[in-house]
Amino acid sequence: MTGLTHFNEDGRARMVDVSDKKATARKAIARSSVLMTNKVYQSIIEQKNKKGDVLGVAQVAGIMGAKQTPMLIPMCHPIQISGVDISFEWVKLNKDRFELVIYAEVKTIGNTGVEMEALTAASATALTVYDMCKAIDKSMTIGETYLLEKSGGKSGDYKRK
Amino acid sequence: MTGLTHFNEDGRARMVDVSDKKATARKAIARSSVLMTNKVYQSIIEQKNKKGDVLGVAQVAGIMGAKQTPMLIPMCHPIQISGVDISFEWVKLNKDRFELVIYAEVKTIGNTGVEMEALTAASATALTVYDMCKAIDKSMTIGETYLLEKSGGKSGDYKRK
Amino acid sequence: MTGLTHFNEDGRARMVDVSDKKATARKAIARSSVLMTNKVYQSIIEQKNKKGDVLGVAQVAGIMGAKQTPMLIPMCHPIQISGVDISFEWVKLNKDRFELVIYAEVKTIGNTGVEMEALTAASATALTVYDMCKAIDKSMTIGETYLLEKSGGKSGDYKRK
Amino acid sequence: MTGLTHFNEDGRARMVDVSDKKATARKAIARSSVLMTNKVYQSIIEQKNKKGDVLGVAQVAGIMGAKQTPMLIPMCHPIQISGVDISFEWVKLNKDRFELVIYAEVKTIGNTGVEMEALTAASATALTVYDMCKAIDKSMTIGETYLLEKSGGKSGDYKRK
Amino acid sequence: MTGLTHFNEDGRARMVDVSDKKATARKAIARSSVLMTNKVYQSIIEQKNKKGDVLGVAQVAGIMGAKQTPMLIPMCHPIQISGVDISFEWVKLNKDRFELVIYAEVKTIGNTGVEMEALTAASATALTVYDMCKAIDKSMTIGETYLLEKSGGKSGDYKRK
Amino acid sequence: MTGLTHFNEDGRARMVDVSDKKATARKAIARSSVLMTNKVYQSIIEQKNKKGDVLGVAQVAGIMGAKQTPMLIPMCHPIQISGVDISFEWVKLNKDRFELVIYAEVKTIGNTGVEMEALTAASATALTVYDMCKAIDKSMTIGETYLLEKSGGKSGDYKRK
Repeated sequence: MTGLTHFNEDGRARMVDVSDKKATARKAIARSSVLMTNKVYQSIIEQKNKKGDVLGVAQVAGIMGAKQTPMLIPMCHPIQISGVDISFEWVKLNKDRFELVIYAEVKTIGNTGVEMEALTAASATALTVYDMCKAIDKSMTIGETYLLEKSGGKSGDYKRK
Repeated sequence: MTGLTHFNEDGRARMVDVSDKKATARKAIARSSVLMTNKVYQSIIEQKNKKGDVLGVAQVAGIMGAKQTPMLIPMCHPIQISGVDISFEWVKLNKDRFELVIYAEVKTIGNTGVEMEALTAASATALTVYDMCKAIDKSMTIGETYLLEKSGGKSGDYKRK
Repeated sequence: MTGLTHFNEDGRARMVDVSDKKATARKAIARSSVLMTNKVYQSIIEQKNKKGDVLGVAQVAGIMGAKQTPMLIPMCHPIQISGVDISFEWVKLNKDRFELVIYAEVKTIGNTGVEMEALTAASATALTVYDMCKAIDKSMTIGETYLLEKSGGKSGDYKRK
Repeated sequence: MTGLTHFNEDGRARMVDVSDKKATARKAIARSSVLMTNKVYQSIIEQKNKKGDVLGVAQVAGIMGAKQTPMLIPMCHPIQISGVDISFEWVKLNKDRFELVIYAEVKTIGNTGVEMEALTAASATALTVYDMCKAIDKSMTIGETYLLEKSGGKSGDYKRK
Repeated sequence: MTGLTHFNEDGRARMVDVSDKKATARKAIARSSVLMTNKVYQSIIEQKNKKGDVLGVAQVAGIMGAKQTPMLIPMCHPIQISGVDISFEWVKLNKDRFELVIYAEVKTIGNTGVEMEALTAASATALTVYDMCKAIDKSMTIGETYLLEKSGGKSGDYKRK
Repeated sequence: MTGLTHFNEDGRARMVDVSDKKATARKAIARSSVLMTNKVYQSIIEQKNKKGDVLGVAQVAGIMGAKQTPMLIPMCHPIQISGVDISFEWVKLNKDRFELVIYAEVKTIGNTGVEMEALTAASATALTVYDMCKAIDKSMTIGETYLLEKSGGKSGDYKRK
């Protein structure tokens, strides 16, 4: 036994049967980021003062990305997401290095968790920031992406150390 | 002028007009990774010896993810991808830390590049590995994700330093 | 405070959290139309007498459109629609002006309403009628599109005056 | 003969064969609108001064909607859109009636036109404005939606009178 | 009365209203197959011994196909599938004829059955096996596809004779 | 070497690189069927005389299914289909056994064939007929599904014997 639940008795991939799990309130928060130069940072800030907004577009992408999770991640259950909230935080790492930290919070009332939805939302947001700014600098890096916390469900609460 | 091409004269987001760009052969390679404990690493290796295979499922997710890019990234042009190849490399970081490095190569003959398709493929692959193994350990981290190289198109070739 | 619920504390777009709303029976009926010349009207009627049918195709588009609502409207919650019914009414406005009125009724048992699903279904139906007939006349107009009524949910019933 | 090209010899719906049509530069501009009270208008304007923006979200929806056209309109060919631009115009109709006019311009190099893509983009934009503001007023109306002009292709240019 | 429930009073197609049906545990198992020569059979078996695996890819396609059912089958309700399991069985028909039998089991807790999800999963699996092997032999045949059994719901259990 | 082109050097699944293949006119015709009792046959025929039509809905599903092929079949290239035509033929097998034969013809100008698009269109059509009639009889069978012919491309023409 490998502990990998997404495999059936034949050792083949399956979508885990959650029919017997209770429908409870569940929440997950994931984190990703985009690391960029001062030049890219300045462009995003300048643009924000106009009607358009890089973060605004990225945020819509994150919210829609959460809804596309079952089409992207093969073994994910289709889920009725009940809320998605994406927020941003700017961190100045040094004179020429800025990090846009992305938090994606997803909620549902259901019989399976929303960790993948939160991670997918955070990733889609980061990828969209890259796309919107890549004409300026292709060397931006999408930073580490991970689950910050989740609550609800049989496996209990989790908080990343 | 901010250098952000995805905005129109009103300062609002648009899908850049590439009608006048030439259809040329284009390629992009992106990199992502999943950082995990020895326990998760062992489970993946053991499972591989059976019929099912975590990396096999993740690879299919990466290839299908490349095709979903225009539905995930708002300003991306729909593209006729002509090839996708995902490969893996295991790196042992220390006694209890393994990194599964993911390379996604995407090709097209078209008037816009495939950087976003390669990055999306790499991200979808990494997210799927996380999904398949999260029952064992929720603290896995998706490592830095970036463009390794691209070729073709007016802006010329790019290789990450 | 602007009364716009689809924005978070930072003033950024979010998918409203409906976790605490009750799952009740909800219904919404929307209306759209296509305004056309006698020539287009006659073509639709003649075709109807054969095996194919413009309205038949448009109806399928409306029903499938209702299901695609969360992929089209960024802040819409994914919903388990429990029924969709599209009906038509022909109105002769004058000798050379016909209006095909479209009614789309959508139902669900859930914690959020189906107004957007009904409006999207009505729009997709109207757009498809346009597509099927545009080879005859590109000047057809999609008429005013609005919510006729909705019931269920905390905000109560609504009937357009 | 009814002039309806989307039907085959049996009188059944088909996707018209455009294999023999030339790939040329094509463009289409469609128009839709949202009619609203002063209260809704004020809320949109106030929100715009914050980070979030109703029109910004609606615009992303319009651009993504253009890409979803072949999944929404049954007989539409899948198309490689080469550019989408959505713009807005506010018209004050009277003291308590404002019209947000929406223009959607779509371009492609291909063997079939982009009229449906432009109309779908305009509709998705209008539907999203409705969705974002419906908590304030459910009686908003999506105004007439039509093709303003198109160019390219065998059938020649068209301009609405 | 024709007994066809997917039509409304006007005789037009509709998505049946299941609002009043109870949410119960439901299951359906469908069967499909791929008939092939010994040469194709040998290629699949040989490949299986390497990292890649035709059946592994087909299985992922089947599971993702089950989730796409409401987008493929017009009158199908969107459903929260709670589990999908695909299994295979090799039957040697004669010296040069092998049949790969595919079983797709789908479960849900809901107010409508999962027969179409199981049939779509089985079909997507079979189509993918064909796609992966068609470079060797285009004359493979997808065998008869049907519902083996279903349980749950008002219409009771069904077992194919 | 197994002759399976959809695997890379590591023996892992990939989307075959078709960048160097020529864009030529390609066509494929696939066949599927639905086997049913006289009772189901009579219901379809009776309904046809009203406004609605089982085959009309199934045909739309087939055409839309062709467009969804790259989302259903993992290794399929996204393709700009240039035409889809679905036709039907009724065969009376005996007093109580009717076969609805489905032909799906798909065309493209591109660097890869449309065999999978034709097979997927035929399957989606058959599955939809099943869905529309399953309230009458769950024991209907989807008959053998296969490629009848294809033309264009380097591998030349194929006609099933």
